[in-house]
Amino acid sequence: MEIQLAKQHGFCFGVKRAIQIAEEYKNSFTFGPLIHNNLEIQRLKNQFNVGLKENIEEFKSGDKLIIRTHGIEKENLDYLHQNNIKFIDATCPFVTKLQKTVKEMSRQNYDIVIFGDINHPEIKGVKSYSLKPATVVLNVEELQSKKFSNKIALVAQTTRKIEEFQKLATYLIKHYKEVRVFNTICNATFENQIAARELAKEADVMIIIGGKNSSNTKQLVNICQSECVSCYHIESEDELKKDWFANKKLCGITAGASTPDWIIQKVFNKIKKFNVK
Amino acid sequence: MEIQLAKQHGFCFGVKRAIQIAEEYKNSFTFGPLIHNNLEIQRLKNQFNVGLKENIEEFKSGDKLIIRTHGIEKENLDYLHQNNIKFIDATCPFVTKLQKTVKEMSRQNYDIVIFGDINHPEIKGVKSYSLKPATVVLNVEELQSKKFSNKIALVAQTTRKIEEFQKLATYLIKHYKEVRVFNTICNATFENQIAARELAKEADVMIIIGGKNSSNTKQLVNICQSECVSCYHIESEDELKKDWFANKKLCGITAGASTPDWIIQKVFNKIKKFNVK
Repeated sequence: MEIQLAKQHGFCFGVKRAIQIAEEYKNSFTFGPLIHNNLEIQRLKNQFNVGLKENIEEFKSGDKLIIRTHGIEKENLDYLHQNNIKFIDATCPFVTKLQKTVKEMSRQNYDIVIFGDINHPEIKGVKSYSLKPATVVLNVEELQSKKFSNKIALVAQTTRKIEEFQKLATYLIKHYKEVRVFNTICNATFENQIAARELAKEADVMIIIGGKNSSNTKQLVNICQSECVSCYHIESEDELKKDWFANKKLCGITAGASTPDWIIQKVFNKIKKFNVK
Repeated sequence: MEIQLAKQHGFCFGVKRAIQIAEEYKNSFTFGPLIHNNLEIQRLKNQFNVGLKENIEEFKSGDKLIIRTHGIEKENLDYLHQNNIKFIDATCPFVTKLQKTVKEMSRQNYDIVIFGDINHPEIKGVKSYSLKPATVVLNVEELQSKKFSNKIALVAQTTRKIEEFQKLATYLIKHYKEVRVFNTICNATFENQIAARELAKEADVMIIIGGKNSSNTKQLVNICQSECVSCYHIESEDELKKDWFANKKLCGITAGASTPDWIIQKVFNKIKKFNVK
């Protein structure tokens, strides 16, 4: 069996940057997981003493805090300032841009529509920057039940699929006078998706590596499933089963934006070791 | 044979307004045809001495000029001011809005993309209000060969089909960071189109009345043709042929936004007189 890596996969610019920041900001805590990859978080803990706290109230003056790639809610940022907690901002610059866009558009009195998952930390953060209540939706059906003013700003969670975003825009354009569409979907995600689709078309088994709670990894899984019948979403090589590869000719591997190269390498090596003919 | 008028048809707000203006501004000339309907223009000439001049240079100080519903180019407006030519503005307010949007967006340094026909007077006028070169396209293929900055304002000729406009927006959203979409398509056109489609689905012959050079009438023809095999585009009752209606059960009638009721009535009466069983 041949094993092939997708031409584009794994770490994006924002994640690489966040890890670099964390490695330099030793003996600190992230507020919520830095990235959606438990194994990498473990590595940062072991090698750089970067711990994890889940609640903002756990941080006290004197603590060193790292803001995760997904950003945090404005209220929490205010808390840090008010309590003199030292922090470094590892928010992905594309997410920061998104937060600023939402803030500015709400200031200009646009109704804010965010395409994304209301429970995802990135979106919780982004939403909090709107100066008026923002609407978060996942599909056109959810939009249909809502009423907006004739000035709408539409943005997207950075890891969403462009096709779904376009559908939302298409609906809004028909029903409202001005729709200001900001394509805030990250190119890295997009490039990973294109490469994953390309490879999944050829492969007869696809391994998608990434956190089970990672939005962009789940998108990759969806895309691969639409092109290839045998798809497996794993977090590490421990989950691999030899019989997935029986009678397969080409195994494709891709990985979400928070998956470090060292995990991908381990997966690759283990599949190779299975030595499937 | 039953004869049915589309629930919405004929004159839109802007055309009604322009005709009222022309009737009150007697002994004048329009610069270019006031509306795209030769018979109505003839009536205005006969009853109100509203003539027609095709070239701006024909107007001299002392002349009374009426600006047509489609608006005029900024250069021509400047000419009127420079030459002290009295004029009244019968530009459809929705077209004026479109001109202002293009001007303002180009001032804010957005690249201007206009969905429309570059040879249509409305679009010639609208385009002239852009402070930088504007791009006029009719479909996505034309867009693909162009390169824009990451800030685009997209507008539409008021009489275009929303579905095509949405396709352009869908393309731009994918390829550029910010697309500011102004749905400048006129509801009246849209409502005429919905009613035409509805009726064409039921009818086995459709008569579409309107100027042969009228953009919105041509859209109606396209829509009817997609729903009904026998469609005829006429300007007046003189063009009707009895054999169009042989063995038909339901004749539908619709009319473009520049078609006056008196013409529609004549068409209706003549078809009725054919007395097709």
